[in-house]
Amino acid sequence: MIIGYKTYLDLIPEYLEGKEVISSEMMKEVDRCRESLEIASQGRQVALVSGGDPGIYAMAGLVYEMAKESEFPCRIEIIPGLAAINSCAARLGAPLMHDFAAVSLSDLLTPWDVIEKRLKAAAEADFVTAIYNPKSKKRTEQIVRTREIFLTCRDPQTPVGIVTAATRENEKIVITTLDKMLDNEITMQSTLIIGNSQTYSWNDLMITPRGYKKKYEL
Amino acid sequence: MIIGYKTYLDLIPEYLEGKEVISSEMMKEVDRCRESLEIASQGRQVALVSGGDPGIYAMAGLVYEMAKESEFPCRIEIIPGLAAINSCAARLGAPLMHDFAAVSLSDLLTPWDVIEKRLKAAAEADFVTAIYNPKSKKRTEQIVRTREIFLTCRDPQTPVGIVTAATRENEKIVITTLDKMLDNEITMQSTLIIGNSQTYSWNDLMITPRGYKKKYEL
Repeated sequence: MIIGYKTYLDLIPEYLEGKEVISSEMMKEVDRCRESLEIASQGRQVALVSGGDPGIYAMAGLVYEMAKESEFPCRIEIIPGLAAINSCAARLGAPLMHDFAAVSLSDLLTPWDVIEKRLKAAAEADFVTAIYNPKSKKRTEQIVRTREIFLTCRDPQTPVGIVTAATRENEKIVITTLDKMLDNEITMQSTLIIGNSQTYSWNDLMITPRGYKKKYEL
Repeated sequence: MIIGYKTYLDLIPEYLEGKEVISSEMMKEVDRCRESLEIASQGRQVALVSGGDPGIYAMAGLVYEMAKESEFPCRIEIIPGLAAINSCAARLGAPLMHDFAAVSLSDLLTPWDVIEKRLKAAAEADFVTAIYNPKSKKRTEQIVRTREIFLTCRDPQTPVGIVTAATRENEKIVITTLDKMLDNEITMQSTLIIGNSQTYSWNDLMITPRGYKKKYEL
């Protein structure tokens, strides 16, 4: 039995052949999780399909939280996958060669002051920083504030990568700078990677050296 | 043509069949990169095999740095894979449901004061924190200091996951606490994940809720 959001299942027809499929257009993720747990509790094997890596800002937590709350008697296994940080990094060159942080700008479940504190910490401690959920129709000012925070302690010329719809047909990749990043289209499907103080751009790629000491010979 | 460290190539015999393979036991990674770039510059297609995700603390950066230095005329593509954060998170439950940071304790190419600053920033801003390269024969005090730093602003009962040799035959998974983490075996092959203030343990798993506000109904 395979359960998933229709948009994702449409991407993997080869895995659906001959299988019972519940493809939901409208069902919310909480409902999909409950349905999966209920069916699995009857002794069936269920694959709940998640976008990206279910273990990074995704479905794994909800599944476990619900299994715990409702004491569903089933065994759960998380199959890791490629999260946005993995696929976006690959498309942008080699931005994540050194310590990095990931921060979601969605303040639906997290107070903005917690998010802002993290942005400041990541900026000040020179983390390469991946920005998840940078913008939506309603959420437009958070990315403006993010840029301001990084500009207080990072050079305006710091490379910034914007990957929209990574690996999809409408994929779009932009290498820009902290200074100019807001001049580019940023959507709900975008992930940003802001370089650290050592990151440079080369041939439309962004590259973070592996260290601050020049100990390795090329 | 496939080039890689022998230990990694031994894990993927099915991809090597019928291919020309340079399996290096002793060759350093810089040499492997140069060899790959030289052969690719002659017009051949070369797969340079990396452990984990080449784009996260791994080979992608070195390849680009060398391509840039030596102006090798070849096209480079990074194929993303599962980094330690992906596979360790999957094994530990759902620790990375919220903002996280990754910090390597290796001070070979990075001054310790930069690393310590990052650990403090990650601890203070309540990031779930993945610790790469926690320990080696020579590097034993850094993990002790890391624990001290986190204890200044996080509860001693905070869940900590220790994954050693993820997905390998000798894989070992431990869920412990910040207080007790040093009582467990930590090796060169270990990755640690330290929970944030909301992370809890349940059934030998660690779970970070998706938010700080309780807006979603289970």
